[in-house]
Amino acid sequence: MTYCVAVIVNDGIAFCSDSRTSAGVDQINTYSKMFRFGIEGNRQFVIMSAGNLATTQGVIARIEKDIAKLEPVNLYTVNDMHEAADYLGELSLAQQAKTGGGNAYTSTFIIGGQIQGHPPQIAMVYPEGNHITTSKDTPFLQIGESKYGKPILDRIIKPDTSLHTAALCALVSMDSTMRSNLTVGPPIDIQLYSSNSFVLGESYHLLEDSNYLKQLNRAWNDKLIEGFSTLPPLQNSAPAPTTNP
Amino acid sequence: MTYCVAVIVNDGIAFCSDSRTSAGVDQINTYSKMFRFGIEGNRQFVIMSAGNLATTQGVIARIEKDIAKLEPVNLYTVNDMHEAADYLGELSLAQQAKTGGGNAYTSTFIIGGQIQGHPPQIAMVYPEGNHITTSKDTPFLQIGESKYGKPILDRIIKPDTSLHTAALCALVSMDSTMRSNLTVGPPIDIQLYSSNSFVLGESYHLLEDSNYLKQLNRAWNDKLIEGFSTLPPLQNSAPAPTTNP
Repeated sequence: MTYCVAVIVNDGIAFCSDSRTSAGVDQINTYSKMFRFGIEGNRQFVIMSAGNLATTQGVIARIEKDIAKLEPVNLYTVNDMHEAADYLGELSLAQQAKTGGGNAYTSTFIIGGQIQGHPPQIAMVYPEGNHITTSKDTPFLQIGESKYGKPILDRIIKPDTSLHTAALCALVSMDSTMRSNLTVGPPIDIQLYSSNSFVLGESYHLLEDSNYLKQLNRAWNDKLIEGFSTLPPLQNSAPAPTTNP
Repeated sequence: MTYCVAVIVNDGIAFCSDSRTSAGVDQINTYSKMFRFGIEGNRQFVIMSAGNLATTQGVIARIEKDIAKLEPVNLYTVNDMHEAADYLGELSLAQQAKTGGGNAYTSTFIIGGQIQGHPPQIAMVYPEGNHITTSKDTPFLQIGESKYGKPILDRIIKPDTSLHTAALCALVSMDSTMRSNLTVGPPIDIQLYSSNSFVLGESYHLLEDSNYLKQLNRAWNDKLIEGFSTLPPLQNSAPAPTTNP
């Protein structure tokens, strides 16, 4: 499996993805699931993927080819993020159709970034080719093994969260996921995009033996255990139910 | 949906279940998913269920009937927890067969407790009727919406964790799940069982407006936010990858 998350705040967008790919237990490999496209000063996109690796690679190759061939519709000609997401959805459907369809060949994508004249945006593109974006109340999108890492995002992320804090929260969300699910693993890619910069911001590539990743993992684990140890002990708020026969 | 968790430690077993049941968005109701059976001094069982409510109720009714009718095989005659789990699995299959089978009618159960002459044990009974127990490394079982609440269990629960701490951790796991998933909700039932007591221990029944539940929710939220705020800022451990064209 996979875990990717994009968080959008007023300051910009933080993208975070793992790199573990499995096609059966004997074929566990490492592939980055983050792809970057852009024209400085005009538009920037980051795409992340979850699902069938061949479909993903086929889609990314088509995006590159369409740009190189100056096709009328490509990531550098689309007018806004909805068109970009629609385009990505069409490529995904076309790629799936090549394999005759079927659930085994689907991929889900997150595309985010900004095009001149528009605000920064992120969208999730379903295997069916349609897509959703975010709202002020849900300023993040997740694909893959999304449940383990959702609670911390729900607690921390607000529209006025700083971009670095959003990225750190995405990484903590990734850390929780990796701890509970073996199919998600390093290296971890993080990409920041600052609103209205039209150039990619800082990026981080954290390997399995990254000292920082270990330090963060330990610090978060310690904080959780420490915080847990101070919680109020169990108390009843109502009479205990009558027991069964 | 549902979330139930049973944690087994040296001191005993902590059971925790939610009470939200939905059969379509217009039919959200409250049913306890925790059922208690036992003979003081001889055996105690707690059963929790996730899945089809009719199947669950059918199975629980059959358990009660088999006990009342003194059927040769019932919860009060089985020799060990494996037999108890097998018996539960058979009832579940029989109940599903009545509706013609199909995924919509399946239920998954956790059964735990202790029978004289045996150590305390918990088992998860799959809709197919088979079951698994725990190991020293994985001293808990979850059914229903299990992913949101798994990270905290992974971090806190060890065999030598106290029974009260195990129960509190189960409740925090439930709190995280309720915050991230609307289909899991109060009242929350908690049942403690102390090893070799052969009598049910403390139980807690926490209603939606429980002051303790609110206090715990707030305390945990504050601790997480506070702990998060002290984490080391993002650092690279390797050169940034080259960006795509």
